Amino acid sequence: MSINRAANGRDAGAFVDVPRGLAGVVVTDTVLGDVRGAEGFYHYRQYSAVELARSRGFEDVWHLLVHGELPDAAQSSAFAARTAELRRLPEEVRAALPAIAAASGRAGALAGMRTALSLFGAARGFRPVYDLDGEQRRADALAASAAVPTLLTALHRLGQGLAPVEPRDDLSYAANYLYMMTGSEPEPGRARAVEQYLISTIDHGFNASTFTARVIASTGADVAACLGGAVGALSGPLHGGAPSRALDTLDAIGTPDRIDSWIRERVLAGDRIMGFGHPVYRTEDPRSRMLREIAQGFGGPLVDFAVEVERQVEAILAELKPGRELHTNVEFYAGVVMELCGLPREMFTPTFAAARVVGWSANILEQAEDPKIIRPAARYVGPGAPVGVPAVA
Amino acid sequence: MSINRAANGRDAGAFVDVPRGLAGVVVTDTVLGDVRGAEGFYHYRQYSAVELARSRGFEDVWHLLVHGELPDAAQSSAFAARTAELRRLPEEVRAALPAIAAASGRAGALAGMRTALSLFGAARGFRPVYDLDGEQRRADALAASAAVPTLLTALHRLGQGLAPVEPRDDLSYAANYLYMMTGSEPEPGRARAVEQYLISTIDHGFNASTFTARVIASTGADVAACLGGAVGALSGPLHGGAPSRALDTLDAIGTPDRIDSWIRERVLAGDRIMGFGHPVYRTEDPRSRMLREIAQGFGGPLVDFAVEVERQVEAILAELKPGRELHTNVEFYAGVVMELCGLPREMFTPTFAAARVVGWSANILEQAEDPKIIRPAARYVGPGAPVGVPAVA
Repeated sequence: MSINRAANGRDAGAFVDVPRGLAGVVVTDTVLGDVRGAEGFYHYRQYSAVELARSRGFEDVWHLLVHGELPDAAQSSAFAARTAELRRLPEEVRAALPAIAAASGRAGALAGMRTALSLFGAARGFRPVYDLDGEQRRADALAASAAVPTLLTALHRLGQGLAPVEPRDDLSYAANYLYMMTGSEPEPGRARAVEQYLISTIDHGFNASTFTARVIASTGADVAACLGGAVGALSGPLHGGAPSRALDTLDAIGTPDRIDSWIRERVLAGDRIMGFGHPVYRTEDPRSRMLREIAQGFGGPLVDFAVEVERQVEAILAELKPGRELHTNVEFYAGVVMELCGLPREMFTPTFAAARVVGWSANILEQAEDPKIIRPAARYVGPGAPVGVPAVA
Repeated sequence: MSINRAANGRDAGAFVDVPRGLAGVVVTDTVLGDVRGAEGFYHYRQYSAVELARSRGFEDVWHLLVHGELPDAAQSSAFAARTAELRRLPEEVRAALPAIAAASGRAGALAGMRTALSLFGAARGFRPVYDLDGEQRRADALAASAAVPTLLTALHRLGQGLAPVEPRDDLSYAANYLYMMTGSEPEPGRARAVEQYLISTIDHGFNASTFTARVIASTGADVAACLGGAVGALSGPLHGGAPSRALDTLDAIGTPDRIDSWIRERVLAGDRIMGFGHPVYRTEDPRSRMLREIAQGFGGPLVDFAVEVERQVEAILAELKPGRELHTNVEFYAGVVMELCGLPREMFTPTFAAARVVGWSANILEQAEDPKIIRPAARYVGPGAPVGVPAVA
């Protein structure tokens, strides 16, 4: 007989003490990828993520993450067609979006997406991952991921008083995303730039939103429950992934002559400079390097200004904080690239989520193969119990 | 200058290995309570949870959890009045509920609540917990908790083609919950039985949904993001907290003469008997004992049958699995009590959530006082990287 106990074998008192915030604590083995901070390198399965972004389309990398291998030509077309078809929303979700947009207007597209994705899973009848075989789980994960751009753009447009734009299945994931956002087909250069950004953002080690998705998956909950939690974690200010903040910094500095004084003042005040520094990389962030090149391919005053800010910040940090390797992180040039591609600033983080949902999904699928609940412990440090309950005063 | 790095100081390679599923790994200190499995005892702050359930009202215990102390008479009335007022939903959420109920009908009230709670937070303009002071955080947590019964009952009724019943602020939390469910004021005995169940369910150590809420809170996300993730984790089959399953077992057995053969068959087949066994308790579950007494206070054939099933299952388990302490868990008599109080079976787990939301909230508030992201690690065990990306076939 299998008993609840099997799901959680801790004997009271058998505590394991670990670093704060579980830093470095190994929760799971993974074959999905890794970040090698000292080398400035990260990979999806056995491939460099940046090399994938430079040489492949989003759907191929998506296939790699969820199926375990890059597709051949036939698989590539079939996967693109399958996921394109999944862009259309169930009618009852479409019908609910205006009310969701109206109620979550001030909170923005990410909060709206959290709600809409939860509803989507329910409308699609998603079942607990432990009740499904691998193929059914993957079907739910693909359906949810494919729906995210449609949900995001529809909520954004409804929030602006515009009608949602129906998805097209003859466009790539990235091009269709831009198309649904604006209503017009994007220039190929812009679609490709956004696609490369999205590929580079699919996964990045074991961040807090990915961990959240896996904790929920470990209970056996459905894919939408896992993704909803991940979107929630992503919305936290400590999570990172807010490229608009770096762009706000560029705006606040304003002009090249103000860079030096603006940055010195912030550094000396102990303020954080948005777009600089990363918890893992000790070298340049490889995503930042790729996105800088993409931005420089477009050129223009914003790019020149960003490059100059980067140069001066690095010089000032080297002077004032010698020995610390502080470079631009992914947010810095991601913001610049998205701005150049015409994405509205309030959609930067939601756009990040439109890529990361694929990474979350791959993590959920991997977690679901190991039906062991993730359930750590807390140590009670309050007054000794029991104290008698006082009578009502 | 504070940098992202400060939020996550792990150096690549500095891995800490721990038991699977983080069993026993101490994530945090807490003053909220504890479960002492070997003694069959659990407490909220310094008080026995069962003693609180026997002697206090739900709102007083809620006050204890979020304010740190039992209220005096004046505080008790003020807190009850404040939370009663928060039962009413913002108009834009009310307006969205029919669409949410329609789209999430098949998935049930818990999935609908996950969606509605997400929407509620957005509509109320909840902000990241790290951007708020303690009083503002508590206000958000109270608002969300107070809204849960209204959301649950409205979604349930809409799913049945009935109009939602507006909350009343002259009834207790438990009585108002039953009132909104049925449209008529409950008998005091039933309201009190449900209230005692709800009190006993507010918190119970560091379960997976509580942990989920704290992981999301550790990113600084808003209270609704944290609670939505917790609801998602609760919906997982490994989480527990599904009292309807134990009642389904009673139905499947059917009559007293079938108990022995039905149970022996399951135990010998290695099946789990729903309603028996707990990961922490090595003795009787103290919640189970209290709920059995409440059920016996009502009496009747269902109660007699449940008591007889319990007696025989324990005897059979003692015979076939000697040395293992397997007793009824909270699900067993919780299902019986809710059935006796007229709650529909599909609302058993949502009713559990209507209590646990207070525990989640207290945990979120505690976590938010320690702005350190919870971000463990995964160990990459796939093929060595990088392997060159093959050209498109």
